Amino acid sequence: MDPPSRLHVRRSGCLGGEQCLTEKPNSERSSPGRLSGVPSNTVLIGKKPLMAYATAIVMQANTGSGDISVKARGRAISKAVDVVEVVRRRFFDGKLDISDVQIGTETLGDEGQTRNVSTIEIKLKKRD
Amino acid sequence: MDPPSRLHVRRSGCLGGEQCLTEKPNSERSSPGRLSGVPSNTVLIGKKPLMAYATAIVMQANTGSGDISVKARGRAISKAVDVVEVVRRRFFDGKLDISDVQIGTETLGDEGQTRNVSTIEIKLKKRD
Repeated sequence: MDPPSRLHVRRSGCLGGEQCLTEKPNSERSSPGRLSGVPSNTVLIGKKPLMAYATAIVMQANTGSGDISVKARGRAISKAVDVVEVVRRRFFDGKLDISDVQIGTETLGDEGQTRNVSTIEIKLKKRD
Repeated sequence: MDPPSRLHVRRSGCLGGEQCLTEKPNSERSSPGRLSGVPSNTVLIGKKPLMAYATAIVMQANTGSGDISVKARGRAISKAVDVVEVVRRRFFDGKLDISDVQIGTETLGDEGQTRNVSTIEIKLKKRD
């Protein structure tokens, strides 16, 4: 049912440049922290605005089992703590407990060019 | 014993500008994270280079009781995690355990102009 011109655009694909929008970034944008291979109760903190992650955690807490894991690396660690504190204080009024906080190190990159990056994992549990 | 010119400079004090160095910043610079009212086993992470705090933690672990508390606020939270991971991996080869990690919120400023800032406290314990 697609007009030929639209089909053509689709087939020609992306010719490069920042204006190029493929399917993947769109689907990532619609649900913050959702990547293939990441469990549904895990929210990965990145470069999006704080409230994008806050709403993702609220949705997850209200629809899932109530156990949520918030993960971040490097500079995003501060934002992860901010997000958790905003969600706990503003949206759950203290009824979301921090069950565990783990910090660690991940090694990124290929051999010879490895670099270490700090990580944090904050586990949250919704109180009934 | 001071020459008069030096005395004059001292008395005239600071006339403003970034070149102005008073006694306080100097004493802070010599011992990272050491402020009046802060327990000696607490290292406050701020804007200094990572290694300044790392050496402060190593010294504290080797001279004190072995229990160290690393605190940070806001953007410095990421650096606090970096510092702890560097000290644990490079200087103690895993013989420094993370006994507890607490995150929270502090309210800064006067009434009407308050703002919330996230905090982290990482408690370390040296293993024998």
